[in-house]
Amino acid sequence: MVDVVAGIDIGGTNTVIGLVNRDGDCISEVSLPTQAESSFANYLASIVSKIDGLVQVANGTVRVKGIGIGAPNGSYNLGAIVDAPNLKWKGILPICRELKLQTKLPVALTNDANAAAVGEMLFGEAKGMKDFIVITLGTGLGSGIVSNGKLVIGNDGFAGEMGHTVVKPFGRQCGCGKRGCLETYVSATGICRTVYKLLASSNQPSMLRSISFEQLTSKMITEAAQKGDPIAREAFEYTGRILGTKLSDAVAFFSPEAIFLFGGLSKAGDLILDPTKRHMEENMFPVFKNNVKIIPSGLNGKNAAVMGAAALIWQELE
Amino acid sequence: MVDVVAGIDIGGTNTVIGLVNRDGDCISEVSLPTQAESSFANYLASIVSKIDGLVQVANGTVRVKGIGIGAPNGSYNLGAIVDAPNLKWKGILPICRELKLQTKLPVALTNDANAAAVGEMLFGEAKGMKDFIVITLGTGLGSGIVSNGKLVIGNDGFAGEMGHTVVKPFGRQCGCGKRGCLETYVSATGICRTVYKLLASSNQPSMLRSISFEQLTSKMITEAAQKGDPIAREAFEYTGRILGTKLSDAVAFFSPEAIFLFGGLSKAGDLILDPTKRHMEENMFPVFKNNVKIIPSGLNGKNAAVMGAAALIWQELE
Repeated sequence: MVDVVAGIDIGGTNTVIGLVNRDGDCISEVSLPTQAESSFANYLASIVSKIDGLVQVANGTVRVKGIGIGAPNGSYNLGAIVDAPNLKWKGILPICRELKLQTKLPVALTNDANAAAVGEMLFGEAKGMKDFIVITLGTGLGSGIVSNGKLVIGNDGFAGEMGHTVVKPFGRQCGCGKRGCLETYVSATGICRTVYKLLASSNQPSMLRSISFEQLTSKMITEAAQKGDPIAREAFEYTGRILGTKLSDAVAFFSPEAIFLFGGLSKAGDLILDPTKRHMEENMFPVFKNNVKIIPSGLNGKNAAVMGAAALIWQELE
Repeated sequence: MVDVVAGIDIGGTNTVIGLVNRDGDCISEVSLPTQAESSFANYLASIVSKIDGLVQVANGTVRVKGIGIGAPNGSYNLGAIVDAPNLKWKGILPICRELKLQTKLPVALTNDANAAAVGEMLFGEAKGMKDFIVITLGTGLGSGIVSNGKLVIGNDGFAGEMGHTVVKPFGRQCGCGKRGCLETYVSATGICRTVYKLLASSNQPSMLRSISFEQLTSKMITEAAQKGDPIAREAFEYTGRILGTKLSDAVAFFSPEAIFLFGGLSKAGDLILDPTKRHMEENMFPVFKNNVKIIPSGLNGKNAAVMGAAALIWQELE
C-alpha cells in the first residue's frame, strides 16, 4: 500500500489530476475539461469521481492522504478561488470546504506559482533551502516565495504576485486592469510585445518581420535569437534587463539563497539567464552582490503543477 | 525585582542604551559617543560598563535578561556588524559573540529598521498582526518586514533593504555605491534633493529659493508646504508618488495587513501620507485594493530604536 496525495492543477482549459507519492513521483494522471460542466458543484463532483477512478485503477495499492490544489487566484487562507479571470464561475468558490465535505480528506489550495515553490522545496532543487523564490514564466509571470522555510502567503493569502509589480506606471496594459505590470514585459506574451516594439522602432532586418502579431510565439523568438537575429537578441536583452532589475528588488526584500526560473520562457536558457543575471548584479545592493544564484527549476520538464499541488499536502502531513 | 532587557541603539555618532521592561517601558537610559574609543574591544567594554552602571543605579530592583542591539548593517544570522559605512571599524564585528562572552547573557542583533518592526509588533500598533511592514524615514529609508509572524531576515540576515530597491537604474547617486535607490528619493535627504530638482526645473516662486543646499532640511520643506509653498507641496507629491508606487510592489510581494511609517519625514503627516496612499492604490493589483492600511507607527515620539532592540530579546524569551 503506497500513500499518495491527489495533486490538482486547475487551468482555464484543462484540469489535471495526479496521484503523487512522497518522493514526488506522479504515479498516475488523468485530465478533464475545466469548464465543461454548467455548475461549479458538478465540476467538483467530476473531480471527486476522477480521483476515485485513479484509485480504482490502482487496484487497492494506493491510499489517498489528502488533496492539494493549484489554481489561478487561489487563496490559501480562504481555501477558495476568488474571481479567477480565466474561469466562468466568478466570486468566491470555496473549493477546499466542498471537497473536504465530500471526501473527508485534508484539502489545501494555493495559486499555481506558490504550489511550484512548495514543489521545488519538497521535490526539486530547493531541498534544504529556507529562503528562495520561484518565478514561473508562462503566458504570464507568477512567483512563489519561501522565507524562513515557509511560503509567503500574506494577510489575505494572495502574496507573491511579483508579476503585478510595477515596471512603468503608465506602461503596457495588463490583463489585471493595471498598466505597466512586470508580466506585460517578462513572459511569453511580454517578449512578443517587445519584439513588435523593436520592429517598429528600428530598421534592422529580422526574420520576425514576416510574422503577424497573432502568429508570433516566444519559441519563434528563441529560435530566431539562436540564429543570431538582432531583433530577437535585443528582445531577450530587454526582457532580461527588466526581469534582472526587478529581481534585484526581490533580493533586497527577501535575501534569498537562490531564484529558480520555471516554464516556457525559461527554456531559452542562457538567452534569458545571462542578461537577467547581469542586470540583477548591476542593480544589486552591495551586500548581496554575487551571493544569489539564478538557476533553472529542478522541476522543468516534469509535471510540476501537479507535483507542487500535492506537495502542499505532503508538507502539511509532516 | 523587575526583569528588563538592555536595548542598544548604535548610531554613527551616539550609542544609546536603555533598560526596557516587558511592557516596552524604557525605565532608564544612558548614552555614550560611539567612536570615542580607539578599538572596538574598548567600545564593547564601555557598553558593558554602562549597562552595569544602569543596574547599579536601579539599586537591586532590576534583573537583566539579555541584550538586544539595533545597528546599521547588523546581520541577525551572523550576530555581527558588517562593513557599516558610518563606523570607523570595518570588516566583520562579531558583537554578539563578544558581549555573550563578557556578560553570559543572550544577545541578539539586527539592523535598526528590523528592530523597529519587532518593537512595533511587541509594543506598538502591530500587536497581533502576522504580516506588516515598518518603513523608517530618517536620513535614509529602512524597512523591517514581518511575514507569517516572523521577521524576514533572509539567507544572510540582511533582508528588508527596501531603501535600496531600484527607482531609476541610472538615477541619483546613493551612499551604497549604486544609483537610483529608493532612499535617494524618499528620505529626509531625498526630499531635499527633490526640492532642488524642482527649483531648477520650474520658475515658480518659493520661499525655499533663499536656502542653500547644505542648509535645507526636510522640516523646512514641511513648514513651507504647510504654508502652501508650491515647490514644497510638489516635492511631497513627488516623494509620495515614488514611495506609493514602490509600496504597491511591496504589497504584491508580501500582502501585509498594514504599513507603518516611522521617523522624521513621517511627521509631515498627511502631506506625505495622502500622496503615498493615492499612488499606492493607483498601482495596486486589484485583489489588494483598499485592503492595506498606511498608518503612522505607534512608536513615533518614543525611544523606538532602544525599544525595538530590546524587543528582539523579549521575543526570543517567549
